[in-house]
Amino acid sequence: MSERILVINPNSSLSCTAGIAAALAPLAASGGPRFEVVRLAEGPPAIATWRDWYQVAEPLCQMVEREAAAAYVIACVSDPGLEAVRMATPRPVLGMLRCAIAAALTRAERFGIIGFMETSRPRQRRALQAMGVETRLAGYEPLNLPMEVLTDPSAPRARLQAVARALVAQGAEAIVLGCTGLAGHARAAEDAAGVPVIEPCQAAGAMALLALRGRAAEDGGAAAARSFAAE
Amino acid sequence: MSERILVINPNSSLSCTAGIAAALAPLAASGGPRFEVVRLAEGPPAIATWRDWYQVAEPLCQMVEREAAAAYVIACVSDPGLEAVRMATPRPVLGMLRCAIAAALTRAERFGIIGFMETSRPRQRRALQAMGVETRLAGYEPLNLPMEVLTDPSAPRARLQAVARALVAQGAEAIVLGCTGLAGHARAAEDAAGVPVIEPCQAAGAMALLALRGRAAEDGGAAAARSFAAE
Amino acid sequence: MSERILVINPNSSLSCTAGIAAALAPLAASGGPRFEVVRLAEGPPAIATWRDWYQVAEPLCQMVEREAAAAYVIACVSDPGLEAVRMATPRPVLGMLRCAIAAALTRAERFGIIGFMETSRPRQRRALQAMGVETRLAGYEPLNLPMEVLTDPSAPRARLQAVARALVAQGAEAIVLGCTGLAGHARAAEDAAGVPVIEPCQAAGAMALLALRGRAAEDGGAAAARSFAAE
Amino acid sequence: MSERILVINPNSSLSCTAGIAAALAPLAASGGPRFEVVRLAEGPPAIATWRDWYQVAEPLCQMVEREAAAAYVIACVSDPGLEAVRMATPRPVLGMLRCAIAAALTRAERFGIIGFMETSRPRQRRALQAMGVETRLAGYEPLNLPMEVLTDPSAPRARLQAVARALVAQGAEAIVLGCTGLAGHARAAEDAAGVPVIEPCQAAGAMALLALRGRAAEDGGAAAARSFAAE
Amino acid sequence: MSERILVINPNSSLSCTAGIAAALAPLAASGGPRFEVVRLAEGPPAIATWRDWYQVAEPLCQMVEREAAAAYVIACVSDPGLEAVRMATPRPVLGMLRCAIAAALTRAERFGIIGFMETSRPRQRRALQAMGVETRLAGYEPLNLPMEVLTDPSAPRARLQAVARALVAQGAEAIVLGCTGLAGHARAAEDAAGVPVIEPCQAAGAMALLALRGRAAEDGGAAAARSFAAE
Amino acid sequence: MSERILVINPNSSLSCTAGIAAALAPLAASGGPRFEVVRLAEGPPAIATWRDWYQVAEPLCQMVEREAAAAYVIACVSDPGLEAVRMATPRPVLGMLRCAIAAALTRAERFGIIGFMETSRPRQRRALQAMGVETRLAGYEPLNLPMEVLTDPSAPRARLQAVARALVAQGAEAIVLGCTGLAGHARAAEDAAGVPVIEPCQAAGAMALLALRGRAAEDGGAAAARSFAAE
Repeated sequence: MSERILVINPNSSLSCTAGIAAALAPLAASGGPRFEVVRLAEGPPAIATWRDWYQVAEPLCQMVEREAAAAYVIACVSDPGLEAVRMATPRPVLGMLRCAIAAALTRAERFGIIGFMETSRPRQRRALQAMGVETRLAGYEPLNLPMEVLTDPSAPRARLQAVARALVAQGAEAIVLGCTGLAGHARAAEDAAGVPVIEPCQAAGAMALLALRGRAAEDGGAAAARSFAAE
Repeated sequence: MSERILVINPNSSLSCTAGIAAALAPLAASGGPRFEVVRLAEGPPAIATWRDWYQVAEPLCQMVEREAAAAYVIACVSDPGLEAVRMATPRPVLGMLRCAIAAALTRAERFGIIGFMETSRPRQRRALQAMGVETRLAGYEPLNLPMEVLTDPSAPRARLQAVARALVAQGAEAIVLGCTGLAGHARAAEDAAGVPVIEPCQAAGAMALLALRGRAAEDGGAAAARSFAAE
Repeated sequence: MSERILVINPNSSLSCTAGIAAALAPLAASGGPRFEVVRLAEGPPAIATWRDWYQVAEPLCQMVEREAAAAYVIACVSDPGLEAVRMATPRPVLGMLRCAIAAALTRAERFGIIGFMETSRPRQRRALQAMGVETRLAGYEPLNLPMEVLTDPSAPRARLQAVARALVAQGAEAIVLGCTGLAGHARAAEDAAGVPVIEPCQAAGAMALLALRGRAAEDGGAAAARSFAAE
Repeated sequence: MSERILVINPNSSLSCTAGIAAALAPLAASGGPRFEVVRLAEGPPAIATWRDWYQVAEPLCQMVEREAAAAYVIACVSDPGLEAVRMATPRPVLGMLRCAIAAALTRAERFGIIGFMETSRPRQRRALQAMGVETRLAGYEPLNLPMEVLTDPSAPRARLQAVARALVAQGAEAIVLGCTGLAGHARAAEDAAGVPVIEPCQAAGAMALLALRGRAAEDGGAAAARSFAAE
Repeated sequence: MSERILVINPNSSLSCTAGIAAALAPLAASGGPRFEVVRLAEGPPAIATWRDWYQVAEPLCQMVEREAAAAYVIACVSDPGLEAVRMATPRPVLGMLRCAIAAALTRAERFGIIGFMETSRPRQRRALQAMGVETRLAGYEPLNLPMEVLTDPSAPRARLQAVARALVAQGAEAIVLGCTGLAGHARAAEDAAGVPVIEPCQAAGAMALLALRGRAAEDGGAAAARSFAAE
Repeated sequence: MSERILVINPNSSLSCTAGIAAALAPLAASGGPRFEVVRLAEGPPAIATWRDWYQVAEPLCQMVEREAAAAYVIACVSDPGLEAVRMATPRPVLGMLRCAIAAALTRAERFGIIGFMETSRPRQRRALQAMGVETRLAGYEPLNLPMEVLTDPSAPRARLQAVARALVAQGAEAIVLGCTGLAGHARAAEDAAGVPVIEPCQAAGAMALLALRGRAAEDGGAAAARSFAAE
């Protein structure tokens, strides 16, 4: 049976969990590692405050200790508990925000972040600081939408496109979606902004595949080892 | 038929091209985009100098203009011609070094690079500068091995492990393989160093999949759009 | 009755709590705010891991909500839960590491940190990143001493002096004691190193006094308001 | 008799000197070190130009050589002569601007400065550069008020509140008062801006107390030395 | 015969080449090195794209190999091929943009750049990154003028003065002319902006003279060697 | 009569003044601006301390006010009084250290400084900070030679070559001579180190010529104004 990448949504929302799974679906491939998306049943309805952010670290660690997997993804775009979870397992652990920022840096030199709320910003700043790329943030625009609008399949699109364009006007050459649940709008945002838009679930999924494939490559890698090396 | 990711080795070496293809093989999945690895027949035997680095930009552009693909990877770990090629197509274009550095930043806050030769260093510094993460480079260690050793399936392993350990001693918490053709040694290097080792072909491959999946996700993304959004 | 500065040791150790109180004693003044040092009875014996670091945030918040005070100090030299506690009260909340680093920056342009263990380093790096002064860290030297040596009134002194001198050799022009309980050795370390040594309990205490005095000054501040202002 | 902290106003203004003393009064405590505020009788009426800034260094050094004290504060918010005065005595010497910036960094990650005049800015930039935190300056707003307004007990308050709010709008999460004589308005500014406001005389006073208490702690510090140490 | 500084315009434009020569004329002195300005006959009409930028590197190298000179200047304000040309000769090779930025840094701490087109910006950013001074760029303003206006002796002046003033309003304390051909307007821009304006041909010319004079000084430098040395 | 560039040695040493003049001689050209090198008769024998550094600012200003010139150079490699002197005249004022650092940045991305004494280092750090290039300093090596050795025409050469090589080993790709009086050894140091060596008197001289020529160019600049502009 194929390897499992355990994607843990640190909040308790079922619809949020389903949205993450939907975003990851296109990355799964038959025969390859499979993404299993779970939630912290005891988590808060959303990671909306610093207290939430700190508090989910321990349950995340405990779930990782309970649930063996080939790799783990913390499925919240402020990377809560990342350092702690990494101590709880020798397997790769990825944070969605760091992965999305990294992906943005492969496509452009300046990027903007579309946040959930203005209050998300200081938590997301921590990831920028940890990666050393705070000065590459061209702008930050919170959606500040009520949940019923945000989760509607079409309602938030116009707002998302507007803030994407606003970030480009501020110098962003790529855009990071700073919350989950917006995968269905990523293409529309990209079309509106004219720059790459990075969806964080998919960014983390791709990095988890990379972390596993890097090792899988070894098994049949004789050809690679015989190859010419340059720069 | 599935989408094609065109991976262009800017040098003319057939064995190098084969090595890149071998490194990418584990990332391919049935039904997903396929990696097609080609070489610049008119390229130099290796990108070993700044002149090589500048000179391959135009042939890369011309190949991209000739060959339609869903995404492109410049398969050399100093990202030659990247900005020019991006002007030659509206499709995503990825550089292996930027992708490998980005991947390292998702796993650690400081990384080291194992280079081909000491002379590769200033070219690779350009990518660090472009990404704004020069201060995150904990160390740089060139392999400085003769080609016949480097391309041997087992000969370079001890040297690779030694420099990986040296980088960890300098503070590296992840390691970027700074040349292609070493995929077969990545696991051994990781085991020796005790930190994640990033293989650049695979890093770029994963990022190319992400760039395409981000758009593919749209098509079946109704569930995603209906999902709860948080941070 | 005078204002209370509540100094909360997030670990459960009584001797650690006593050490913090002893370090703060010289800063208290009759008529001024008083330092009250308490511990988290439910805290871990020490903040020795990332899990400890994340886990104490919520009990810290709850204690702050329960215990009214004029200002709060989180009495651990990795500033656990700082952002969360700041959301739990409108009163000033100070972290010992940020205060000690700030104090070092008033005395010198490069500083070193003497840590408890090598594993403390990544947590302490977060504070440097949050303050934007990571490049001003000239060196980091962990004590790596067994607890029975560390808490002995004289045993750790020689080691402390040696690492202080080592940091100066690495370019440190001031030294931050990166764990509590070393106040009794600060002068000896300063004499050995020949540069200012910052004790974190006292640094946070001084900053808490400042946060309160800034407001107290208002009451009798007519003279100040009448004074000449320049640069 | 208690230790003396000599606070030297490098300008010759008596009212400015009185304002500094008034600002420091709330920090003094019976039995603790006492603040003695003096002026450079030969100094200029204000440190208003680079020439003033350079020129007061030597008289400051000479006063320090003449007047023994436990610690010294240069009482001007552009830290003139700081490095020179530090060579003139082995005792701690503190600059008000560095102390105020450091205090701001203990309360927030971005701060603004309210300057005396636009022309003060390049001098104050030197302190930011020396501390390595230039990128943490969210904004700079000069008061640009005539002296008779500035020294009026109530006249400058509205302007001060307005610029404090303007700095918050620019991203400041704490505010440094960049000239002396405004202590009487600090609370009003804080209330208007909703973020911590740092008064520089008091910031330097607190740091001077810390510098002395760090050593005083040694004498009765047996309990501290016996305490448990963590992180 | 005097030494020759070969100034190579990488584009094929005769009028552009003449403009460079005119800008350099005031730096030449009888008996000193002479500037000889040539063009790449096979170059593009202007370096207007990344492809142009990459493509001229090899012809520049070949010309340098063919044409012996005491020093070389690449006469385009995006420094194309600089690293490659430096490998093609042991003699000093200077890029106009780096020289102009360096000159600006000798006059001020923040500078602005007046670019040819908005699309010139990412290429010019590479030089800022290579020099490590990206954060010192106060603003970037493209002229975006049609060529017939740009090359008119008086037509572009008003626009140039306007953007120079705009850069000062953004914090620029010096201005770099980011394209050749504007030497005739430098004084007018300086007068309009009230800050130093750096003309890139002249900046590179001065640096080339320095590179040669440094060695010439040796010959008659006995007095220098006997002189007193301080700081 | 030609324009005068007044080069002011802020120390009182006649031999030092002569050494500066000797270093500048090769830059002078018949018909061009002339360098006139003077000393501060009331200055200290050398700028060897922070007090010296501060104290010469005012006499420098006064000399500049007394002596009309087309441009001024402060002839000491720690740029004392630079900001003050710039307020004393509308004419260009250049500091030797900033000019030498700028020149180094046109030749390489990392540089080392050869200092007079270890105690010169913090003063020279100020210029690096002001220019924003502190992280580009690969190493700092003081000569620490007695004056009679330093001023001997041949005695210091071996030491200079040794420290130049040491800086290259530390990553320097160019070297700044951090004191005057070494012009006679610049070529020998360059030959020993294999990287460009920048002599500060000449660097400042070249920048002063540039500052003047930029304006001179205007007069005969019709051709320039008619020229084609590109990037």
